[in-house]
Amino acid sequence: MPTSPLKMNKYIKSRSSKAGLGPGTLIHVGEHIRDNVKIELIDYNSNNYETRSLESIKEGLAFKGTGNVSWIDVEGVHDPSVVECIGEYFGSHQLILEDMLNTDQRPKIEVHNDFIFIVLKMLSYNEKTSEIDIEQVSIIFGSHFLISLQEGKEGDVFDPVRERIKKGTRIREKGTDYLAYCLLDVIIDNYFIILEKIGDKMEDLDNKLLHNPNSQVLQEIYSLKREIIFLRKTIWPMRELIGKFEREDSELIYDSTRKYLRDAYEHIIQIIDNEETFRDMISGMMDLYLSVLSNKMNEIMKVLSIIGTIFIPLTFIAGVYGMNFDYMPELRSHYGYFGVWIVMLVIAVIMLAFFKKNKWI
Amino acid sequence: MPTSPLKMNKYIKSRSSKAGLGPGTLIHVGEHIRDNVKIELIDYNSNNYETRSLESIKEGLAFKGTGNVSWIDVEGVHDPSVVECIGEYFGSHQLILEDMLNTDQRPKIEVHNDFIFIVLKMLSYNEKTSEIDIEQVSIIFGSHFLISLQEGKEGDVFDPVRERIKKGTRIREKGTDYLAYCLLDVIIDNYFIILEKIGDKMEDLDNKLLHNPNSQVLQEIYSLKREIIFLRKTIWPMRELIGKFEREDSELIYDSTRKYLRDAYEHIIQIIDNEETFRDMISGMMDLYLSVLSNKMNEIMKVLSIIGTIFIPLTFIAGVYGMNFDYMPELRSHYGYFGVWIVMLVIAVIMLAFFKKNKWI
Amino acid sequence: MPTSPLKMNKYIKSRSSKAGLGPGTLIHVGEHIRDNVKIELIDYNSNNYETRSLESIKEGLAFKGTGNVSWIDVEGVHDPSVVECIGEYFGSHQLILEDMLNTDQRPKIEVHNDFIFIVLKMLSYNEKTSEIDIEQVSIIFGSHFLISLQEGKEGDVFDPVRERIKKGTRIREKGTDYLAYCLLDVIIDNYFIILEKIGDKMEDLDNKLLHNPNSQVLQEIYSLKREIIFLRKTIWPMRELIGKFEREDSELIYDSTRKYLRDAYEHIIQIIDNEETFRDMISGMMDLYLSVLSNKMNEIMKVLSIIGTIFIPLTFIAGVYGMNFDYMPELRSHYGYFGVWIVMLVIAVIMLAFFKKNKWI
Amino acid sequence: MPTSPLKMNKYIKSRSSKAGLGPGTLIHVGEHIRDNVKIELIDYNSNNYETRSLESIKEGLAFKGTGNVSWIDVEGVHDPSVVECIGEYFGSHQLILEDMLNTDQRPKIEVHNDFIFIVLKMLSYNEKTSEIDIEQVSIIFGSHFLISLQEGKEGDVFDPVRERIKKGTRIREKGTDYLAYCLLDVIIDNYFIILEKIGDKMEDLDNKLLHNPNSQVLQEIYSLKREIIFLRKTIWPMRELIGKFEREDSELIYDSTRKYLRDAYEHIIQIIDNEETFRDMISGMMDLYLSVLSNKMNEIMKVLSIIGTIFIPLTFIAGVYGMNFDYMPELRSHYGYFGVWIVMLVIAVIMLAFFKKNKWI
Amino acid sequence: MPTSPLKMNKYIKSRSSKAGLGPGTLIHVGEHIRDNVKIELIDYNSNNYETRSLESIKEGLAFKGTGNVSWIDVEGVHDPSVVECIGEYFGSHQLILEDMLNTDQRPKIEVHNDFIFIVLKMLSYNEKTSEIDIEQVSIIFGSHFLISLQEGKEGDVFDPVRERIKKGTRIREKGTDYLAYCLLDVIIDNYFIILEKIGDKMEDLDNKLLHNPNSQVLQEIYSLKREIIFLRKTIWPMRELIGKFEREDSELIYDSTRKYLRDAYEHIIQIIDNEETFRDMISGMMDLYLSVLSNKMNEIMKVLSIIGTIFIPLTFIAGVYGMNFDYMPELRSHYGYFGVWIVMLVIAVIMLAFFKKNKWI
Repeated sequence: MPTSPLKMNKYIKSRSSKAGLGPGTLIHVGEHIRDNVKIELIDYNSNNYETRSLESIKEGLAFKGTGNVSWIDVEGVHDPSVVECIGEYFGSHQLILEDMLNTDQRPKIEVHNDFIFIVLKMLSYNEKTSEIDIEQVSIIFGSHFLISLQEGKEGDVFDPVRERIKKGTRIREKGTDYLAYCLLDVIIDNYFIILEKIGDKMEDLDNKLLHNPNSQVLQEIYSLKREIIFLRKTIWPMRELIGKFEREDSELIYDSTRKYLRDAYEHIIQIIDNEETFRDMISGMMDLYLSVLSNKMNEIMKVLSIIGTIFIPLTFIAGVYGMNFDYMPELRSHYGYFGVWIVMLVIAVIMLAFFKKNKWI
Repeated sequence: MPTSPLKMNKYIKSRSSKAGLGPGTLIHVGEHIRDNVKIELIDYNSNNYETRSLESIKEGLAFKGTGNVSWIDVEGVHDPSVVECIGEYFGSHQLILEDMLNTDQRPKIEVHNDFIFIVLKMLSYNEKTSEIDIEQVSIIFGSHFLISLQEGKEGDVFDPVRERIKKGTRIREKGTDYLAYCLLDVIIDNYFIILEKIGDKMEDLDNKLLHNPNSQVLQEIYSLKREIIFLRKTIWPMRELIGKFEREDSELIYDSTRKYLRDAYEHIIQIIDNEETFRDMISGMMDLYLSVLSNKMNEIMKVLSIIGTIFIPLTFIAGVYGMNFDYMPELRSHYGYFGVWIVMLVIAVIMLAFFKKNKWI
Repeated sequence: MPTSPLKMNKYIKSRSSKAGLGPGTLIHVGEHIRDNVKIELIDYNSNNYETRSLESIKEGLAFKGTGNVSWIDVEGVHDPSVVECIGEYFGSHQLILEDMLNTDQRPKIEVHNDFIFIVLKMLSYNEKTSEIDIEQVSIIFGSHFLISLQEGKEGDVFDPVRERIKKGTRIREKGTDYLAYCLLDVIIDNYFIILEKIGDKMEDLDNKLLHNPNSQVLQEIYSLKREIIFLRKTIWPMRELIGKFEREDSELIYDSTRKYLRDAYEHIIQIIDNEETFRDMISGMMDLYLSVLSNKMNEIMKVLSIIGTIFIPLTFIAGVYGMNFDYMPELRSHYGYFGVWIVMLVIAVIMLAFFKKNKWI
Repeated sequence: MPTSPLKMNKYIKSRSSKAGLGPGTLIHVGEHIRDNVKIELIDYNSNNYETRSLESIKEGLAFKGTGNVSWIDVEGVHDPSVVECIGEYFGSHQLILEDMLNTDQRPKIEVHNDFIFIVLKMLSYNEKTSEIDIEQVSIIFGSHFLISLQEGKEGDVFDPVRERIKKGTRIREKGTDYLAYCLLDVIIDNYFIILEKIGDKMEDLDNKLLHNPNSQVLQEIYSLKREIIFLRKTIWPMRELIGKFEREDSELIYDSTRKYLRDAYEHIIQIIDNEETFRDMISGMMDLYLSVLSNKMNEIMKVLSIIGTIFIPLTFIAGVYGMNFDYMPELRSHYGYFGVWIVMLVIAVIMLAFFKKNKWI
Repeated sequence: MPTSPLKMNKYIKSRSSKAGLGPGTLIHVGEHIRDNVKIELIDYNSNNYETRSLESIKEGLAFKGTGNVSWIDVEGVHDPSVVECIGEYFGSHQLILEDMLNTDQRPKIEVHNDFIFIVLKMLSYNEKTSEIDIEQVSIIFGSHFLISLQEGKEGDVFDPVRERIKKGTRIREKGTDYLAYCLLDVIIDNYFIILEKIGDKMEDLDNKLLHNPNSQVLQEIYSLKREIIFLRKTIWPMRELIGKFEREDSELIYDSTRKYLRDAYEHIIQIIDNEETFRDMISGMMDLYLSVLSNKMNEIMKVLSIIGTIFIPLTFIAGVYGMNFDYMPELRSHYGYFGVWIVMLVIAVIMLAFFKKNKWI
């Protein structure tokens, strides 16, 4: 997980490589993930359902289905020509097309006369690398068409939506706005899964903290803290996004959808609440770690010091009777040696009693 | 009490298990607490009072009492059919029913034309486990019916309200809005009890801090801090909830009730004030703990070091006269041995005096 | 002073003992301080002045003086009958009466048609216990009557106001709103005295910090910090209270009084400013304490370690020549012993020089 | 510089000594600085310029000059009669006069029909004591008269304004509002000088931190931090003051002056920016100091411990061969002594190598 | 990089040297960077493009080109006469001219009837000194003229804009407002580069932290933190600036440009987001550094103490048998010496086992 900051940095780097180019210049900014662009069209209304794989975006836009809604899902945004096609179709501004290609966009919504443009982050937990994968998703929809653009990483979170369309549930009776809401909804639901994963890690770290706090734990707390910082950056703008989506006065948004958006808004608030609680807890864990470790270390140092301290006076006494003075009466005494042992034992016992009394041991 | 974070996590997990399902799908999210659903109906007006135990929620909704207000209290929300019944009766949106079944809801109020829907958290202090039990309560009321849904844990905090209805106090002359207020009021009163328990623990910890600070105390402070974080998450949204309840322009809320809601609002402000004060104090205690402990440890180390330091020069002197050189004039002297003792005593006294003078001991 | 948190806790406890009672139930919540209720009436206008001690509040309310203003000061709020009388006279809501009896009220103002109700905290510094005493004061006034309710602790801060009324200054020409302002004003003036006391303690602690920082100082800083937290809780709501008093559009408040309220508002802002500065400074002192102490401790440990370190190699050398090998040429040398002394001195000097050079001593 | 808090405290004390007096009572609150009151009148318009020293404020107010603007500068506010005169002339409220006499006023502006009243703090850096001197300045102006009241400390910052009036620059063509702005402007310009002094000290401390961090530096950082806290208290209210001055709709403020006030407002924002940056930096320095010191101390302790640790096993070996057993074969060997030396050297080298390898030395 | 604070200080110093001068006095405040002023004129419309180097600003303002837009770029602001010329041309207020000359201006925009004035900071990363160079840029534009004033450091970031004008892209069809936007845009793009550089340093420090945390790293973290503080001061006001530019209702700003400004606004938000994330991360690194270092140091001290502790009892035993008592039976035993060795080994093993068991080693 310590690679998260590197990722961020990479993003910024890519963006900086664009510095100086005119605004609206269409260049793909981000990782180059896949070579071919995968385009899928789902066309449906309450009665019909059709799905097909497309060669080019143009083919999709030219498609005149019987359905109310045509959803074109594009995986792979590195090809500016795809984006240009969309731009022509919706008559959208160059800057929006630029936003689609730039995979380091801040989540936002733009409501235009003929279409609504949404850009947000899809998070998924990569079991292999135990990392959070971030993928940017752009959604643009008009009255009949909805186009979703993904960066094109392996797999997405939209399968449940495809399933629901296929099964012919309520979604088939609604328009593009409801489809857009559904896509947002599954993305937001995945945030809960990410929170759960973070929660699991925190539980795990909490156990380690109490039973075996070592420097490894510190690294993990620190890296978890960093993950939460990044999560925060992703989810806070969502609040504004969904709130604006709900309130916005557009013909493209039906009133019946607004209730669902309100619900999504509350989910985001709850996610933010949980994330803030995690933030509080993780900094509490950091403090606790330091305290526990410092406690443990002090405990060790104390025991070691006490052992040392008890023997120091005894060694001194042994040293005294190791002196070679001609005249040392004790040395001549028959019971001198035993006497010294007794004296040393008494001193040791007194010191231990003193330490005990002062609750040092 | 360190189980609190686990609980939260469990909640999020359950929620995440719903990811991908369509919005408004009625599935119970939360712990499965009891098998049967307990339903109780209380019907009253200023003259009459009737209570009965019901088999099903339908029976209750079909009930035509003589009273002004029919309060149906449902314990156990795991059965979606109960919730569906309510949905049909009030004609309420699927999303509200979903909120009732989902026990990880953020406290909120929704004011509709024909009914008002409130969801909030009932806290109670479990003496056995010394833990705070959280139970979600949903309240939905129209002009004559009020339905309260509890998760169904053992016992609730509504007995005083039942008692007051039975005794025939002012509550019998008022409508469903006043009953809803009364239920909120007893729930809020219980927050004061939770605060008191936390206050007790803080007093207790404060005493331990001053008299016997050990690593156990740290754990307790930390776990108390966590409890306060969770309490915070529960009570902050209440402020908005009650505030909206008071201000909202609905025919279901009588003006005479608003004064009481204002009072409840002030109670919540006071609870938040106290909780924030606790938060300040607990982090102060954390700091104090570390200071006290570090003071104590330094004190020990200092004494041990001083003992060691005094004996090191003395041991050195003893070592010198333990050397076996052929020609060491002191060894031959008759008073050499006594002289060395005197020298060593003088050195010890000088060092002690030096330490004393510098206030090191 | 560490008793402050206990006090707070006690308050919350008392409040919690009310949980479950119907709203508006008149029960005294707080310490039982005095047995009898002391009631004093002061009636005045620009020409006349009359004062008398009353048996009951009824007597006072029935009183028809020649004056414009009748001020009834009640000490001791434990008797609900007193409060009920007031309620009847002003026709005020049960909840207000409840607020009067409940001595854990948050400072607030309520403006009604016929009367204004203010509740706030009177702070006084108890020289005997070096503690801040908190006493709740309720003020309720209509066009001719002003009733002040104190908890009934020994003494109050209203004497200067009584004096001014007696002397016949401007206050005699004004109405109940100005009297209310005067009472607020003396209470606020006493906050300055409390700030001064806290300032004195901070100066004192600052001196101790620089000259003799011990663990006692830590306790004092910590307890002062706690006092400031509590003070904060008391004075912040005053800002809102006075602000609302000034702005509120009521026939009971004359425009001429508003200027004075503006002045009081500025005093509160200034008190809050100072309190916040104290807060900043006390946490700075906490940090400084820890730094100073850790500095001092490190200094000690360093000196002790250095002493130890110098003697360790010397003791080693002495040990070497204390060995009993048959063939050790140095032991046979006539100057061996003196040579060893010289070697040891040289080593000691070199080590001291090294320590000196590195600025360790 | 550690005297700053004492000063503040003294102020509050003085204020508290007024507790209980009626509002508007004219008593000087603050240090008694000078015996006589120095009054200077400057009268000017675009053509004429006249300056004279006055005996009393009355003389000034009675003065009918040819000029548009009569500026009366009063040094020394301890005499209530001066303030009373002003009050009579402007017909101003008692509370304003009280504010003039009370030298612990929060900066503020009051716009009345016939006059504008400003109170603010003049800061100057006292080279002798290296302290920031605070002096309260009240400015009251009507259409022709402007009166400035200073506490009367040695010197003020108004000389550049006097100079400009004398020289006959633009200031001569403008009214009292512009003169008031000019006075504010020089006072604000002096805040920059104070910031510069603080910046110098920070540079200085930064150097000390890197090259010679001792406990003296800690004291200085701490005292600088305190100075910044106080500066903050002085400059933050200025933002509101100037902002209100600029926006206020009064006949006394010409539109042409507002642009200058906007400029002054930006200066204050910039001063606040810098002060907040200083605040961030000083707490960074505090952290750095502790880290640097703790680093240095750990470094010392480590070296000392290593020296000790190397000699401990060697001393043990020497001790072994100092034992007096009858049968110890090594002692009899001719090369035993040299062998032991070799063993000891080997042990020392191995330990040093181990320490080196682990990067401990 | 530790020179950053010095720079800031220098700026404030320069500003303070102006204290007392009348407002609007034209004096250059800042470093004197170059002797001659370099002036370049670019005149263009959709068809024509002309560029020339000018001797004086007057020449440029008198220029009547065929183009729609005349952009005069001035490098070097130390000469007040240049600024005075501009003032005359635009009829702008003295205070604006003062702002141009004062290179310590807070970023801001002023919208006047005939012209818009913008002042902001151009950041560039100096590879040689690894420092961030700050240069103030003022932009003033009317309907046909745009004048940009730079401090005159070597190089600027405007080359891409010059290139685009030369190449005849969209910029040639737009007005001065779009040119102003383009200049802002390249400046903002350079902030991304600065962020990237800071990100690189953070990655670098992160590596060092994990593999070789030494006191050098602390210095670097601290200096990076300071750089971020300064960056923050520069970019936060940009948000307000761009936001105001976008919203402002002026004839000089075309609607088509507003979309681009909205885009620039989002870039600034993103830069602020990243900067705040960096801020969070850098303080996390500071904490981690201290923890890692303290961990490492404790580890060392522990090992050293353990070595010491094991040998102390052994040395004591050797000391005992080095005593010279006449009667010590063990000394006479033939196996005494070997027995002592065994005893000592057993003790060492027991202690090691104890340490091991307690996970101290």
